[in-house]
Amino acid sequence: MGIRHIALFRWIEGTTPEQVEAVEERLTKLPGLIPQLKAYAFGADLRIGSGNYDFAVSADVAGESDFIAYRDHPEHQAVLAVIRPMLADRAAVQFNIAD
Amino acid sequence: MGIRHIALFRWIEGTTPEQVEAVEERLTKLPGLIPQLKAYAFGADLRIGSGNYDFAVSADVAGESDFIAYRDHPEHQAVLAVIRPMLADRAAVQFNIAD
Repeated sequence: MGIRHIALFRWIEGTTPEQVEAVEERLTKLPGLIPQLKAYAFGADLRIGSGNYDFAVSADVAGESDFIAYRDHPEHQAVLAVIRPMLADRAAVQFNIAD
Repeated sequence: MGIRHIALFRWIEGTTPEQVEAVEERLTKLPGLIPQLKAYAFGADLRIGSGNYDFAVSADVAGESDFIAYRDHPEHQAVLAVIRPMLADRAAVQFNIAD
């Protein structure tokens, strides 16, 4: 039994495509830097639905201690420092997934 | 390139564990009923983080037409009819994932 961590972001008005690209570039590097990440996916909302958030991150880890290691990892915290000022809203869940 | 659909739910106050179990029982059946679902995971928030939503659904499909087929499928709509009165808040994103 693993854990899937989901974080959805809504950007503040005035957020530029360049800012979002900079976030994506940093997120791309995390799986190579944080060994606890078994699977990692993220991306901008495709604008299929209405009322959606703007961006999603989906991270699969083996268990709670690995999630904490990811959450508190300095490289992850460095990306969060970039993301935080861009956030209008954030929604998150960690839930159990089959291995 | 596939699509991952994420929906996070926050339940209204007074929602019972039995109500959530009834939702989970219905969600469990969807992959057997909706062939467009390539991967399907869902579950209650593990209460590791603070301020989290209460429940997550993660659905992987091959592309936009398969997402629409899932979204509009009568069996999915029947579960949504159960979920909707329980919702205090909902956050969703559809984003591209590698196959």
